[in-house]
Amino acid sequence: MALENSKTDPSFSIVVRLKLQNDLDVLSRVINLVHEQNGAIGAIDVVSAEADHMVRDISIETTSYEAGRTIAEMLGGLEGCKVLHLSDRTFLIHLGGKIEVTNKIPIKNREQLSRAYTPGVGRVCMAIHEDKTKAYQLTIKKNMVAIVSDGTAVLGLGDIGPEAAMPVMEGKAMLFKEFGNVDAFPICLDTKDTDEIVRVVKAIAPGFGGINLEDISAPRCFEIERRLQEELDIPVFHDDQHGTAVVLVAGFINALKVVGKEAGEVKVVVSGVGAAGTACSEMLATIGVKNIIGCDRQGTIYRGRQGLNSDKAAYADWTNPTNLQGSLSDALVGADVFIGLSAPGLLKVEDIKKMAKDPIVFAMANPIPEIMPEETQGIVAVMATGRSDYPNQINNVLCFPGLFRGALDSYACCINEQMKMAAAQAIAASIRTERPVADYIVPSVFNRHVAENVAAAVFKAAVESGVARQYKHQ
Amino acid sequence: MALENSKTDPSFSIVVRLKLQNDLDVLSRVINLVHEQNGAIGAIDVVSAEADHMVRDISIETTSYEAGRTIAEMLGGLEGCKVLHLSDRTFLIHLGGKIEVTNKIPIKNREQLSRAYTPGVGRVCMAIHEDKTKAYQLTIKKNMVAIVSDGTAVLGLGDIGPEAAMPVMEGKAMLFKEFGNVDAFPICLDTKDTDEIVRVVKAIAPGFGGINLEDISAPRCFEIERRLQEELDIPVFHDDQHGTAVVLVAGFINALKVVGKEAGEVKVVVSGVGAAGTACSEMLATIGVKNIIGCDRQGTIYRGRQGLNSDKAAYADWTNPTNLQGSLSDALVGADVFIGLSAPGLLKVEDIKKMAKDPIVFAMANPIPEIMPEETQGIVAVMATGRSDYPNQINNVLCFPGLFRGALDSYACCINEQMKMAAAQAIAASIRTERPVADYIVPSVFNRHVAENVAAAVFKAAVESGVARQYKHQ
Repeated sequence: MALENSKTDPSFSIVVRLKLQNDLDVLSRVINLVHEQNGAIGAIDVVSAEADHMVRDISIETTSYEAGRTIAEMLGGLEGCKVLHLSDRTFLIHLGGKIEVTNKIPIKNREQLSRAYTPGVGRVCMAIHEDKTKAYQLTIKKNMVAIVSDGTAVLGLGDIGPEAAMPVMEGKAMLFKEFGNVDAFPICLDTKDTDEIVRVVKAIAPGFGGINLEDISAPRCFEIERRLQEELDIPVFHDDQHGTAVVLVAGFINALKVVGKEAGEVKVVVSGVGAAGTACSEMLATIGVKNIIGCDRQGTIYRGRQGLNSDKAAYADWTNPTNLQGSLSDALVGADVFIGLSAPGLLKVEDIKKMAKDPIVFAMANPIPEIMPEETQGIVAVMATGRSDYPNQINNVLCFPGLFRGALDSYACCINEQMKMAAAQAIAASIRTERPVADYIVPSVFNRHVAENVAAAVFKAAVESGVARQYKHQ
Repeated sequence: MALENSKTDPSFSIVVRLKLQNDLDVLSRVINLVHEQNGAIGAIDVVSAEADHMVRDISIETTSYEAGRTIAEMLGGLEGCKVLHLSDRTFLIHLGGKIEVTNKIPIKNREQLSRAYTPGVGRVCMAIHEDKTKAYQLTIKKNMVAIVSDGTAVLGLGDIGPEAAMPVMEGKAMLFKEFGNVDAFPICLDTKDTDEIVRVVKAIAPGFGGINLEDISAPRCFEIERRLQEELDIPVFHDDQHGTAVVLVAGFINALKVVGKEAGEVKVVVSGVGAAGTACSEMLATIGVKNIIGCDRQGTIYRGRQGLNSDKAAYADWTNPTNLQGSLSDALVGADVFIGLSAPGLLKVEDIKKMAKDPIVFAMANPIPEIMPEETQGIVAVMATGRSDYPNQINNVLCFPGLFRGALDSYACCINEQMKMAAAQAIAASIRTERPVADYIVPSVFNRHVAENVAAAVFKAAVESGVARQYKHQ
């Protein structure tokens, strides 16, 4: 992984404000120093120019947080160069938060006020009071999703609390808007109690058309989602489980096409059977995969294993048809597909070599996968990760904006299996080539057609499966 | 009140789409008919023109909901005129809701994504995890207010439920943005239980910099506000109580100047001692009014009255210094100021005639005041209502956008008496004349300086009273 350390990353960008003496050739020495330290220079702006010095802002993309600090420190040591200010571009764009609430119509005069607010609004209220379904036409419910988290399982950071989870939920809201034109609002909860979370979400539901549960730790996430789905008449979707599963299945469908195998014939080993691993396994079973073997730190999940918790015991009941016992490495012998939702470095080159011909590897541990793509070159047929800097990024953003767009447009009361499957198929079909190729089994997250395709497929599936409450696009 | 029926109101505007035969002089007959029915014609647009007919959209402001329907029906009876479509402009602007969530920065490429979301966002999360106060700099908390209602006391409509309350709360959010540049988000609750409401608001608080309680019925609103103020470290403000009180006091200060009286010397009768009436009385006492007498349907509130509930008994303890017993009419004998937060028509001309010289009347029942301004001409010195179509509108929008702006800018942990009083003084002082005149004791709701003045005064008061956590404007 030495390679990692010399790669710059836009999330580690700094802006240094430098006071540079004019009579020395300082700027070129600044540039040389940055290059020597593996930094990449972006914009160079002039802030002010005096007879003897210039003040410049220089954007530098660096390899790590520490590297940025080191570069700034070293620049301060150059003759004729003074560091006036160091800022972190990632922090800069988060200042004041990343989303806002804006008005769709102006209130500049009394006529506008009297229609949007009192007294006119009273008639609109009474229309909804008489027929609650009118809330879909006459309020933000039609297009509004709550992104609900308790901050217990945020990214790979763990239980960091509701305040610290907000930047992620705001970012998620941005993706909803940017890719699906869905309005989404982050609600970070100051409670970890399952009953309390269920109560709170039920209480705030009237103004929302859907609930996206996010970064809630297992096993509470299962019960919270199940109970809310039972008790609310709007879609409740735990993205960490099902969003991941939908995109994985999309990639899986195309990966099998690359190697010419059928779902019913392949052996799939799933490393990590938490929330996402379980949801992925379930969806794979739905598309016809019969031989799924789950593994955790102790090895394969099998019926009768001592000390299995209830979720894993339930998982063992319908997976691992031959009730194979042994390590992850044992399970991989003859396997066609590895699906990793576990931890960095768990998959070894030797393990891959024991797999069947044309092995397919989904190494989705974040930010460092179960095996780095560099190590698998020449020994795998298809390689996918959760990372943006390698081909085949399995990223939930391919799913949730379009999925909720379709669900909201149909006033769906839930997101059911048919809708999730329609989303997976639509993502898989968004690769507009005759036949998928190894390095392109899922579309780019910036492919604008994906969300549209997913939304249309999900809308259709909602109508056909009888959960839509609105049958044509408005 | 016959006058009322011939006045058009922009909240009762319709748009009729008419197919008009060309060879007849239909348009002029349409216009005549609308005028005869007391409608006011606005825009006339051409939708399409054919050899024998034109299709036009005609906007008509009418006097009531029924009047609009009648006009449309009568237009359908005109020769050569066919009504293709009738829409209600008030409903039209509510379609799909009135607010949206928008992104402050773009996510168009991988660099932007990696800074706003993963992986860059992780460092921002950890910075907040290490120092929770950084949530104010790095998330939407800095500028975000929750507008929380259970839909039990919406406008004059009563308990209409959370879905039906949404259009009002969305409208309120628009006013926050338009006048105070405050982001506000409506949360309408599917529960009326005091404990549950307190729990829910506490649970969702981490992402908000303030809580505006709205349209929650008494007496639950008192306990909910008090408990939330005790348990949260952000401002919790029940606008129906304190927003009304702040604007009333602003008007009161200027009204006394108009008649040349002092707060300490006047007798004030308050009709209606619910949430708003109590809050008004308390603020009046704070500015030095000593003689306040509250009245309800049974007459004056006095110590020892049978059957007083605990709130009214508490009110009796510190008001009505001579413990006057009798009707509202009795109480008004010799009174200087009438403050009505009760019901239409409760105040009679004869009552006003019993008041002291230069009577001041705040008749704020909505939408129909305790007495119509037309009836008081020549017998009052100052007349104010809650209505936009008469001078001196006592409207909360003069207060809450600027008040929350100042509170958020100072990271205030609460909104205290000093801040409310600063807001009232700033509103009163926004009348930029040497001395207020009878028809101009409060500024227009569209006076853009009011919110700025209020925000600056509230910020200063927060700092001086020690509840600010940030001491200079950013």
